Amino acid sequence: MRALARAITLVERRDPSIRDLEEAVRNDTRSDTNPVGVTGFTGAPGTGKSTLVDAVVTLLRTREQSVAVLATDPNSPFTGGAILGDRIRMQRHALDPKVFIRSMGARGHLGGLSLASREAIRLLGAFGFDQVVVETVGVGQSELEVAAVADTTVVVLTPNLGDSVQMIKAGILEIADVFVVNKADIDGHGRVVAELRTMLNMAPKASWKPPIIPTVATRQEGVEQLWEAILAHRSHLERTGKAKELSERRLRDETVEVAAELARERTRRALREDPALTERLLKEGTPYRTAEEILRTRTDN
Amino acid sequence: MRALARAITLVERRDPSIRDLEEAVRNDTRSDTNPVGVTGFTGAPGTGKSTLVDAVVTLLRTREQSVAVLATDPNSPFTGGAILGDRIRMQRHALDPKVFIRSMGARGHLGGLSLASREAIRLLGAFGFDQVVVETVGVGQSELEVAAVADTTVVVLTPNLGDSVQMIKAGILEIADVFVVNKADIDGHGRVVAELRTMLNMAPKASWKPPIIPTVATRQEGVEQLWEAILAHRSHLERTGKAKELSERRLRDETVEVAAELARERTRRALREDPALTERLLKEGTPYRTAEEILRTRTDN
Repeated sequence: MRALARAITLVERRDPSIRDLEEAVRNDTRSDTNPVGVTGFTGAPGTGKSTLVDAVVTLLRTREQSVAVLATDPNSPFTGGAILGDRIRMQRHALDPKVFIRSMGARGHLGGLSLASREAIRLLGAFGFDQVVVETVGVGQSELEVAAVADTTVVVLTPNLGDSVQMIKAGILEIADVFVVNKADIDGHGRVVAELRTMLNMAPKASWKPPIIPTVATRQEGVEQLWEAILAHRSHLERTGKAKELSERRLRDETVEVAAELARERTRRALREDPALTERLLKEGTPYRTAEEILRTRTDN
Repeated sequence: MRALARAITLVERRDPSIRDLEEAVRNDTRSDTNPVGVTGFTGAPGTGKSTLVDAVVTLLRTREQSVAVLATDPNSPFTGGAILGDRIRMQRHALDPKVFIRSMGARGHLGGLSLASREAIRLLGAFGFDQVVVETVGVGQSELEVAAVADTTVVVLTPNLGDSVQMIKAGILEIADVFVVNKADIDGHGRVVAELRTMLNMAPKASWKPPIIPTVATRQEGVEQLWEAILAHRSHLERTGKAKELSERRLRDETVEVAAELARERTRRALREDPALTERLLKEGTPYRTAEEILRTRTDN
């Protein structure tokens, strides 16, 4: 567990030894034979996402599955409280060696979160976890990052937030494989489900139609149905060949993003170590030419 | 105007001729002597941002200033309507040759929007515009991208949205140079201003304290005060040397992002043109090693 925590820290820090970790993971054959299942949970703050994730972890433990939870955070200093709250809520699993919980930050730059979570997920698979749950904390584009790393994306709504229309605006319909209407015991539940169903019927026909699962996470209600829906989606991916397609596309995308990150590092170093280059950039205002020159002439990594 | 529109399309498409545009702009000395002023407007949907931007454009035109508006869009297919709405609203300036309005999309990948808007802003400066207004359309991380390109970031709130707390969560306090409480003629206005003031007083001391400007954009009320606040912030940047610092930091950041983008292109091309490389990546699952190899061995751009 400590080795895993340390490895994920290296991934977050973009430490050059990620490469060695990658080689180590590559030589581990388990990840080929039985890839880890990745489920993403996203939704507005206050929908009870963390409680729901906690309930899913509890369910999976009764089924003897090991689970890792990655709580990803867009990293504003103002979300610190929320992360802390999640950690406290998850403490009932703190002593269970088959549950690993980790908060991951975006560390400033866009795109960094999904890259770091992909690497972390590969590590978790190599360390033998059966399931990984990726949860977004906070708001913003992070839900798109979750969808980029998860096999199945669960979008959590509630009856008391009038946020369904907002959700649509952010393109959430496109990324949802399963909808949860949590807090199904309060008023307005039927209306949200109906609204959602109307929207889903308006969406273009697809081979997978996202089911809508009502839950009361605080009472563990609907969680089994939710997990069945997630497994059904996973079977669908396998059956249609989309699982393989997804995993290949992700490896390509990840390679592209790693290259971008390496180029960023190289450029920052060049600007730091070559005052003449920086001076010319600031004087002439030519970022494009400067970047090209750095990539062309500096091949160190 | 048509040349400008075409140039911005090249920037959006990441056309290789951006480099030539950059050289052309570099030879234009105006941008050094009188840099274009960039004001960003951000806020939740429904706050009346577009109407406010429209009111600011109207004010600037009475002062004989030319204005370009960039409406930036996180590019979900579901926001198409909003963008269209903005365009319709802006039509009162459609025949004014000193007003240029353009919607820009993120084209899929993170970080792309701020890079494209920086290049577009440099072009607008070279084409002789006095002011550029960058407006976010939709929700999400786009407000951070606006802050990354604007000299002055205006955050728009309204009394009837209970979104001030949400805003804080997204780290909006850190990026706001000026607050607008729009729709100042409806109930709850005083409460939002008071809430905001309390939050600002809790924030760490800084040399600039963001003013709070009440407006009724639909009636052009408060718009002059808003513009005065924006100009006061700009003077503050000049006086404290922050303007120069900002512009230098942006050139560095932009160079880093251009390099990342060039590396992405190079990697995509390598994976497309070298089946053996791709096959090995998919078989071994080593994005880090593959990316390093591509950057080390391929120096073409």
